[in-house]
Amino acid sequence: MSTPSDAQHEAGWQIKAREKREAINSEIPSHWQIAHVPDADELKDAQHYAQMADARALLEKLAGGQYTALEVTEAFCHRAAIAHQTVNCLSEIIFDQALERAKELDAYFKANKKPIGPLHGLLISLKDQFRVKNTHTSVGFVAWLDRKETDETESYLVKVLHDAGAIVYIKTNVPTSLMAIETNNHITGYTWNPRNRHLSSGGSSGGEAALIAMKGSILGLGTDIVYGLKPSHGRLPYLGVRQSMEGHDSAPSVVGPLASTVSNLKLLTDIILQSQPWLHDPKVVELPWRPTEFDEVHSRAKSQGLSFGMLKFDGVVMPHVPVLRAMDELKAKLQAAGHEVIEWTPPPHSEAFHILWDVFTMDGGNDVHDTLAISGETPVAQLAASYSQSKGSLPAFDIPKIWNLHQRKYDYQTRYSQYWNSTANLTKSHRPVDAVLLPAAPSASFRPGEGVYFSYTGVANVLDYSVVTVPVTTVDKTKDLKDGNDERTSDLDKLVGSHYDPEMFDGTPVGIQIMARRLQEERVVAIADVIDDLLRV
Amino acid sequence: MSTPSDAQHEAGWQIKAREKREAINSEIPSHWQIAHVPDADELKDAQHYAQMADARALLEKLAGGQYTALEVTEAFCHRAAIAHQTVNCLSEIIFDQALERAKELDAYFKANKKPIGPLHGLLISLKDQFRVKNTHTSVGFVAWLDRKETDETESYLVKVLHDAGAIVYIKTNVPTSLMAIETNNHITGYTWNPRNRHLSSGGSSGGEAALIAMKGSILGLGTDIVYGLKPSHGRLPYLGVRQSMEGHDSAPSVVGPLASTVSNLKLLTDIILQSQPWLHDPKVVELPWRPTEFDEVHSRAKSQGLSFGMLKFDGVVMPHVPVLRAMDELKAKLQAAGHEVIEWTPPPHSEAFHILWDVFTMDGGNDVHDTLAISGETPVAQLAASYSQSKGSLPAFDIPKIWNLHQRKYDYQTRYSQYWNSTANLTKSHRPVDAVLLPAAPSASFRPGEGVYFSYTGVANVLDYSVVTVPVTTVDKTKDLKDGNDERTSDLDKLVGSHYDPEMFDGTPVGIQIMARRLQEERVVAIADVIDDLLRV
Repeated sequence: MSTPSDAQHEAGWQIKAREKREAINSEIPSHWQIAHVPDADELKDAQHYAQMADARALLEKLAGGQYTALEVTEAFCHRAAIAHQTVNCLSEIIFDQALERAKELDAYFKANKKPIGPLHGLLISLKDQFRVKNTHTSVGFVAWLDRKETDETESYLVKVLHDAGAIVYIKTNVPTSLMAIETNNHITGYTWNPRNRHLSSGGSSGGEAALIAMKGSILGLGTDIVYGLKPSHGRLPYLGVRQSMEGHDSAPSVVGPLASTVSNLKLLTDIILQSQPWLHDPKVVELPWRPTEFDEVHSRAKSQGLSFGMLKFDGVVMPHVPVLRAMDELKAKLQAAGHEVIEWTPPPHSEAFHILWDVFTMDGGNDVHDTLAISGETPVAQLAASYSQSKGSLPAFDIPKIWNLHQRKYDYQTRYSQYWNSTANLTKSHRPVDAVLLPAAPSASFRPGEGVYFSYTGVANVLDYSVVTVPVTTVDKTKDLKDGNDERTSDLDKLVGSHYDPEMFDGTPVGIQIMARRLQEERVVAIADVIDDLLRV
Repeated sequence: MSTPSDAQHEAGWQIKAREKREAINSEIPSHWQIAHVPDADELKDAQHYAQMADARALLEKLAGGQYTALEVTEAFCHRAAIAHQTVNCLSEIIFDQALERAKELDAYFKANKKPIGPLHGLLISLKDQFRVKNTHTSVGFVAWLDRKETDETESYLVKVLHDAGAIVYIKTNVPTSLMAIETNNHITGYTWNPRNRHLSSGGSSGGEAALIAMKGSILGLGTDIVYGLKPSHGRLPYLGVRQSMEGHDSAPSVVGPLASTVSNLKLLTDIILQSQPWLHDPKVVELPWRPTEFDEVHSRAKSQGLSFGMLKFDGVVMPHVPVLRAMDELKAKLQAAGHEVIEWTPPPHSEAFHILWDVFTMDGGNDVHDTLAISGETPVAQLAASYSQSKGSLPAFDIPKIWNLHQRKYDYQTRYSQYWNSTANLTKSHRPVDAVLLPAAPSASFRPGEGVYFSYTGVANVLDYSVVTVPVTTVDKTKDLKDGNDERTSDLDKLVGSHYDPEMFDGTPVGIQIMARRLQEERVVAIADVIDDLLRV
């Protein structure tokens, strides 16, 4: 909370940021406001009650008239209000609009005795990048609080969801400009990990992930995801979605669902594809949901087992002990269930890291700094870490360097493909592996400022592969003792190693990635189904 | 032919170019050499005898043992030798390699009593960009005569064709750097139009188109095509294919078949997709040939007729009279057969032209000039027309300008899509049009130096749409009188108008484009089938 004396020293951009932050909070009805929000030491784990998590079951209740849209909306809004007050995860609250829409849907249902569309009454959370009418799309920049969206500027996917009967009730927090793996900006501020409020919720979809973990949503849309389905570019429509560095096509950002279950991921992907987004978004490939490929994986999993490559260490940063344990436990469960796991030794992931770093910094951070400069805002630490404190500190690429970067990326993708094909010589099935299993990050989470390495997910951005991230286990301080690895050699590796603390991380979920090839969303979701079933046994 | 006194004044790069030109010609066996090649005034039309044009029928004869690969290869090599001597269309002659391969195939057939693959013994011509072992891939640059390709560097698609049993026997001529619509360079020189040796064969696949018109090939592969199938990016594998400005991904070049019949286009596309190129080339989308979509168009064409948009004039350059006549005749035939033709008034094609021009010149021509500089070569006129005579005359884009260009392109694509969708309100079927019909160029061909406007095909490059080009008619000097259009207003429009000459153009084929949306290759080939059948009645 700001005080009058703070306000005297506030710069113009700080006032705008504070006013917006207060405006968001004021959208929480007073009867949902928590009088005393306990701090992280008092209440580390904010997830203390559960809620219906299967979207399909909820939709059935709505379609059957057992639940009204209004009561479902009220429940989710309440839950989202609690989430925001405890982990600070929202960038927009639009409960009023949501409740109005819910009433319309109930009226429609009453008059027509049927749902308005396949998502009738389902609440969907959206990462802040999505443009929703009557709301800001700040993407963490104070400058972009200058105007609200309209019918004309609304993102195409938001219209698709609306037409299918879904209700948008909030938008979730992101790092300023999106370009960080901790969610922090000057408007909403820092988004905390629901299971451990001393730690980060990750990023750039950190607000979305935190909200879902808090059961403030069961299904949402994020981009370049750390939890959920990251499809390949061109599978789901990005049209009208805001990002910094617009037009930067060197490693395009993607849209994908985040959810509380694998089945929800599939539901939303399927419904979006039913709207034939390729007729509206020129970047989307004409590829309806392919049930044959989904079923083929499931039936082969039963009949002969699947083949996996597993990469525990990318050769740059050794994961923390709980992450390594998660990989080992997963391997054992897969093998016990009749699946095959081979070691994965692809073209070095360090190459992908360098390519991605060049992609992210090719303009020398000028676009980000120019947007900050509009309002006079300074970069948050997480942004300055990549783009420096001020403009002009990093060189911008010229065209020969850009084209060379594109060739490096294509060449890396080609060699990775060749390696993948070559695993047909290593598997018992004589087929290339079905998917690759690797950590989602070297750590379960991080303290503010300690999110320094993004290449475990970055490799799939460079390859444009389809990925599902699933939680495997949680940190257990009794098993996951302090990192005793003396083999860490580089400064970066040692730095990340030093961040692990069994006491601090205890109870934090550990996610792994299931990575399939480009545009294999059906297969990777089916594989996630298979793995999730094994983990829940 | 050069004389000793010429040679005295030759620069180093001119010597290399001449030696390569002589080396190509020396690969024509003496018994196929034409003692006196008549000049264009003596023999305007070089197409004076025909040959089996259907690849499927030829493959059946080969697979049935009626023809040997050797005799088919000799026939095609002979025909290609005639083509080169009359219209100057080849950049590599590899008859020896082809005849060797034919003998291997015949031996295989004799031993196994079956063909080696689906293209057993079929001769396939390749645009010079394709890397074939033991040959140069100069793309018209003297500098790139520095080394020959090997097994390792061969283009992926060449391996696919080889594995399927096809025989590569020549490579076809291209403009230096590809970036021109007349095929001319310092090595092979100018490629002429087979039907009229005073005029151009077009470009950049001009050598390929000329060879096919000369029946020196019935099936070949070009890129960004003026005749044949131009698929969308990501449908067919470009891996290992050479181009200037490598890494320039702002409007990616594509590979597609050129052929003497629509059926041949389909055959080759289908066989390439059967090799699952998406497992090898990371830019290829996993999209096997879709017979359902092909059949759906055919059956709807019969049952209810198709709907077309027709654009005769792009608002920039009015086509010559024979081109306008071709469009009118096509429209009448379509309507008589029960199809619907509506006027096409999309977002201005002039916008696409400006976008494409910016894409082609964004590096200020530096890449092209740097490659020329390696050997000291000067640009041919067609190259200087776009990139100027020397380096540094055009500005290079910086990153904000490049990203803005990408956004302009995406925005144009989006608005074009919206317009296309909106035609559902204009057609009797209440469906958006199936395809758009537009001229392939404002003229049937051009004299050397007069190929100045490429936007009629360029719009599909910007939109990344799938296109089949088919010949509709030929110029008839008795019907297509001198352009009397006084409405030409811009200098460019007047200039192109002034190039038409009924006497000179008489007999030259006029092509039109059938443009479908992105990645709709099956549909556009089916529509080309329907149209081709109507035209041949």
